[in-house]
Amino acid sequence: MPGRPRDPFHWLEEAERLRHRAGLNRTLRPRAANRSGLDLAGNDYLGLARHPQITDAAAAAARRWGAGSTGSRLVTGSTELHAELEAELAAFCGFEAALVLASGYAANLAAVTALTDSGTLLVSDAANHASLIDGCRLSRARTAVVPHSDPDAVRKTLDGHPGRALALTDSVFSVDGDAAPLGALAAACRAYGAALLVDDAHGLGVLGDGGRGAPHAAGLAGGPDTVVTVTLSKSLAAQGGAVLGPARVIDHLVSTARTFIFDTGLAPAATAAALAALRLLRAEPARAARVRAAAAGLHDRLTAAGLTGARPDAAVVSVHAPTPQAAVRWQAECASRGLTVGCFRPPSVPDGISRLRLTARADLTGADLDHAADVIVSTAPPGARSGHG
Amino acid sequence: MPGRPRDPFHWLEEAERLRHRAGLNRTLRPRAANRSGLDLAGNDYLGLARHPQITDAAAAAARRWGAGSTGSRLVTGSTELHAELEAELAAFCGFEAALVLASGYAANLAAVTALTDSGTLLVSDAANHASLIDGCRLSRARTAVVPHSDPDAVRKTLDGHPGRALALTDSVFSVDGDAAPLGALAAACRAYGAALLVDDAHGLGVLGDGGRGAPHAAGLAGGPDTVVTVTLSKSLAAQGGAVLGPARVIDHLVSTARTFIFDTGLAPAATAAALAALRLLRAEPARAARVRAAAAGLHDRLTAAGLTGARPDAAVVSVHAPTPQAAVRWQAECASRGLTVGCFRPPSVPDGISRLRLTARADLTGADLDHAADVIVSTAPPGARSGHG
Ligand SMILES: Cc1ncc(COP(=O)(O)O)c(C=O)c1O
Ligand SMILES: Cc1ncc(COP(=O)(O)O)c(C=O)c1O
Repeated sequence: MPGRPRDPFHWLEEAERLRHRAGLNRTLRPRAANRSGLDLAGNDYLGLARHPQITDAAAAAARRWGAGSTGSRLVTGSTELHAELEAELAAFCGFEAALVLASGYAANLAAVTALTDSGTLLVSDAANHASLIDGCRLSRARTAVVPHSDPDAVRKTLDGHPGRALALTDSVFSVDGDAAPLGALAAACRAYGAALLVDDAHGLGVLGDGGRGAPHAAGLAGGPDTVVTVTLSKSLAAQGGAVLGPARVIDHLVSTARTFIFDTGLAPAATAAALAALRLLRAEPARAARVRAAAAGLHDRLTAAGLTGARPDAAVVSVHAPTPQAAVRWQAECASRGLTVGCFRPPSVPDGISRLRLTARADLTGADLDHAADVIVSTAPPGARSGHG
Repeated sequence: MPGRPRDPFHWLEEAERLRHRAGLNRTLRPRAANRSGLDLAGNDYLGLARHPQITDAAAAAARRWGAGSTGSRLVTGSTELHAELEAELAAFCGFEAALVLASGYAANLAAVTALTDSGTLLVSDAANHASLIDGCRLSRARTAVVPHSDPDAVRKTLDGHPGRALALTDSVFSVDGDAAPLGALAAACRAYGAALLVDDAHGLGVLGDGGRGAPHAAGLAGGPDTVVTVTLSKSLAAQGGAVLGPARVIDHLVSTARTFIFDTGLAPAATAAALAALRLLRAEPARAARVRAAAAGLHDRLTAAGLTGARPDAAVVSVHAPTPQAAVRWQAECASRGLTVGCFRPPSVPDGISRLRLTARADLTGADLDHAADVIVSTAPPGARSGHG
């Protein structure tokens, strides 16, 4: 036994110092309920998080079913609400079956680990979301990271692998808001007998006919080799996640996916809110097109003023900044003028370009877009108009 | 390119067949809101999931803050509610700081991965919960699995490891409801400069002074080397999880834990419900003792009738069954008489003994306990009274 007890967390201060130097320390800033100003940083794409129909559904479900689901989905945590949401979500997106989990993160961990054995090859896009990456890590299968949105690289990687394979991609990537080439990826997978897992977190409610999502738009819905994950926390304005796919895949997850079996079922309020949002989207399909139009309108206004960024494929709009420091200051200037925007810097950006990250919503008016563009353009740092830093 | 596309899920049917043969297929059975009968399977230990004060708080929060939190805690997903819950939870349990995540599962993944580097030795109890195990897997650190509740084994494992080390344990184990020897584990860790991570999912609200949890009861609250995870989905009747510990540990998680940074913040309704449950527990501290008394009362009634099972340390009561098949039939007989109980069989039980698993609640009356014992005893399979199968 050593003489003097050591501090088991002695390494924290050095880690903090390194993060500080790299500009990677993060701070929580809780918001007030009555915050004024314009929010272009949240993921409430359809503008439903505070819609009375949705919040009434959440409130009524808490009163009727309880504040929590009280247990794992396989014990006491499955209510009729969960079953209704699963049936309607699967039907809406065009899949045979769906399984609701407590988060989109848990849905990705569940899908990747349950569909993988130690001989499976995982082929993962370099820009995939952290939860798909963690799914690969948890599965302990061999993972080949392929260049971003490169179906040929997927083909080359699958070629010569005789065993089971699963390719993984976001449908819309978080940083730049660009859409994945789903059709070409599906063709590559099909040619090699590989399955395709699409994380449609940013596609559901925004892309496809009436917001049915990117896989639906690409003609992949209901395919025997396609599995889709979604979150209930963005367009569906609530919390939670789901896996959609062939019934036999969903059955397999029910019996084997650890983040499903050993996790408490989604709370009734969130389940009911997501169901109400789904029904509202079905009744008002134009909301999906309105998100896309708002994103395009924002991009057009900003580029007309000389700023640059990829043309948005969905709700996420990115604007390039000359340096990480300039991006942070730009974000703060916007905030001081009542406009909340996101900010991405290295190492969270694959290409090293710092940017502001804006998200469009179906309920933004032309005046909102004008005002947002005005604030962003008038606070732009020197060099932002040149295009990149 | 191969000639004919293969079915990428061809292996599912064989996996299903093997599961079926091992009795491991699982089926979802959604419950109705007005289900009658007695539920001894859920984890609503304090009986608060449908308490009007808690469901009103959930409903009001959905209306005031929205159905979802709209983003990551670091972007738009932190409300004042989250900050209040963190402050009050930390103070109640006796820790410097707390961080709320979307689930207890996510809290465990966050704590294990953020406190680990590639040279860290993880020392994990053989009966730990799946989410701690998945945390070990995700961290990719070396993991030594030690025999269940064996502080000497922890000492031996830590001895001779010069680098960072973290021991992990449930405070109350899911299968048998037995409590971990926290004091002895903490002493072992302290002797070797290792940190201790305690998952108090089943302890919070049940053990310790007024339900302050097992670490508080063991005198570990606020210790510089102790980190605790809790879930908001059991005693606190809602959904979500939290990590409690020294402020510098919590700050480190804010900046580095992937299941915190890349996950949507907990929904306002769940946050508010957990906060209301915490306040109610503070106002009515006797609820914690009532859970323990109900568990002991159930165990006493069952053992008086000749059934066997470990003496409960918290809310979980286990009853041995002679065979896996008998356990399943026993559970079904109880259900047909309106009593919902859980059932654990190999391979989910470390010792190979199948059992019914009952959970006590603070709001069970003596008549409820009599009735439950009566149903369980009168449906007991031949051989259950002999003790084990
Ligand atoms: C692409 C993507 N996948 C998965 C998730 C995780 O979903 P959730 O926040 O519901 O856990 C997110 C965002 O949070 C995301 O952006
Ligand atoms: C010991 C233990 N840890 C962690 C969890 C996960 O918590 P949650 O269901 O809130 O994700 C559970 C139960 O679900 C549990 O029993």
